[in-house]
Amino acid sequence: MLFLIGLGLGDCKDITIKGLEAVRRSTKVYLEAYTSILIDGHGDLESYYGKPIIQADRSFVEQKCEVMLNEALVEDVSFLVVGDPFGATTHSDLILRAKQMGVDIRVIHNASILNAVGCCGLQLYAFGETVSVVFWNDNWKPTSYYDKIASNRRAGLHTLCLLDIKIKEQSWENLARDRKIFEPPRFMKVFEAAQQLIDILNIRLAGGAREDTLAYSADTLAVGLARVGTDSQQIAAGSLLQLTNSEVLLGKPLHSLVLPAEKLHPLEWDMLAMYAIDKSWFNANKNKYVKN
Amino acid sequence: MLFLIGLGLGDCKDITIKGLEAVRRSTKVYLEAYTSILIDGHGDLESYYGKPIIQADRSFVEQKCEVMLNEALVEDVSFLVVGDPFGATTHSDLILRAKQMGVDIRVIHNASILNAVGCCGLQLYAFGETVSVVFWNDNWKPTSYYDKIASNRRAGLHTLCLLDIKIKEQSWENLARDRKIFEPPRFMKVFEAAQQLIDILNIRLAGGAREDTLAYSADTLAVGLARVGTDSQQIAAGSLLQLTNSEVLLGKPLHSLVLPAEKLHPLEWDMLAMYAIDKSWFNANKNKYVKN
Repeated sequence: MLFLIGLGLGDCKDITIKGLEAVRRSTKVYLEAYTSILIDGHGDLESYYGKPIIQADRSFVEQKCEVMLNEALVEDVSFLVVGDPFGATTHSDLILRAKQMGVDIRVIHNASILNAVGCCGLQLYAFGETVSVVFWNDNWKPTSYYDKIASNRRAGLHTLCLLDIKIKEQSWENLARDRKIFEPPRFMKVFEAAQQLIDILNIRLAGGAREDTLAYSADTLAVGLARVGTDSQQIAAGSLLQLTNSEVLLGKPLHSLVLPAEKLHPLEWDMLAMYAIDKSWFNANKNKYVKN
Repeated sequence: MLFLIGLGLGDCKDITIKGLEAVRRSTKVYLEAYTSILIDGHGDLESYYGKPIIQADRSFVEQKCEVMLNEALVEDVSFLVVGDPFGATTHSDLILRAKQMGVDIRVIHNASILNAVGCCGLQLYAFGETVSVVFWNDNWKPTSYYDKIASNRRAGLHTLCLLDIKIKEQSWENLARDRKIFEPPRFMKVFEAAQQLIDILNIRLAGGAREDTLAYSADTLAVGLARVGTDSQQIAAGSLLQLTNSEVLLGKPLHSLVLPAEKLHPLEWDMLAMYAIDKSWFNANKNKYVKN
């Protein structure tokens, strides 16, 4: 049996009872270690579970998962995923291969950012497509998520922006020379994402877009979230421009950003107001955002 | 302290370690008992947690929650919610009142249908607005969710349809006479929801809509899900028409229905094919649905 187990968002105690029981009865425990990070380290998990954990990086899951699946044919094996097993990465590939090989799979769900984002007070059912904001470099400045945000806003929906995580990345030089030297991990923060969203407006304007057709402005309401589901969770609501100054306020990763719909339910507004960066901005903008 | 604790979707062992620790240290434990149901009964929870659980129905949460909040000012109190505390119902009202009263709140997240629906293989980030399908009666046949499905499909997004739950409903007669006699609980199943989605097409056609402008047809791919996150979970994929015959296949509540986007990622299609009601229908329709 292969147990696909969500760890939730915080520390080692965010696993479910069912998940912990599966881990404890498994002879091998793998941890998916490339699409997210643990707030708790690897060592904490090992001591809490009382058994060694094997890090499964992208190349393991994509190329060598047959090793794990063969084990799961004859014994109980756990594959741990931060958040929910069907979060940002679906692991469909792994499940389909398991099915082909005749491996029984059991999924143990948990919270992921895709539902825990509701903690800011915006209604989950009113979220549209989720987008990813990636680090720009000199040669690559993708802006395609702007159109998805625009589409969500036209439909009256909120947009969850997942912010880029770079783990085990190689520089071009190291990649070219096939040297297994990795860059330090990088996690995009809300202040960077907010700046990028503003930069896109300027790119669109420079490309001839009319200001009144843009999906949002630097003064549009946005919500920054840091370390959702942990004891040190922080939420900050204000204009995108205000969020470009949220580096100290929001602190360490992981961060996410939400661009709410143009009109909010009064309770959504009141919830966000609890997290206002600037109460006077909130008071001044209430009539603009709240549905009558 | 008020702990707002998600129970997840299955049985009493789907609570997290952190959640269970909070329950065990709480002097009072309330269970929100009106927006969802537990697959396990109330009694199982009480024996597992080793303490009595107070049922909190809608009128309690909306009108009498000050009693609970006053307790939480001086002791640890747990408020349990099936799924995640910020699932279909946000409990924003409760949180705002707690804030006004100076009650500390700690949220312990868990899986909800809004993220666990990913188990069918459709990518979570490609879901649009979530809709609710409610029981029709002779006087009230709301169809407004059709437009939301149409909007999601135009944007290339999947739609999760939450199916109606009627708990502690009074008949008009009992309501009029203020008799606290409640109808038996009712849970909409996928076969009923699929029929209603087809009925709406006929209503639109009768209203003059052109067939080629409709958002979907009786032959459109849909996915029925039953008891997601439990040991008896069932998934059935096929046309809406096929799903009108899923009563035996999917069995007991809770059910949900997904109307996928018009075009799917090949892996999404392969995952759904694992749950095909009719393999030949899947084979015949692959080219229509899969992105090149």
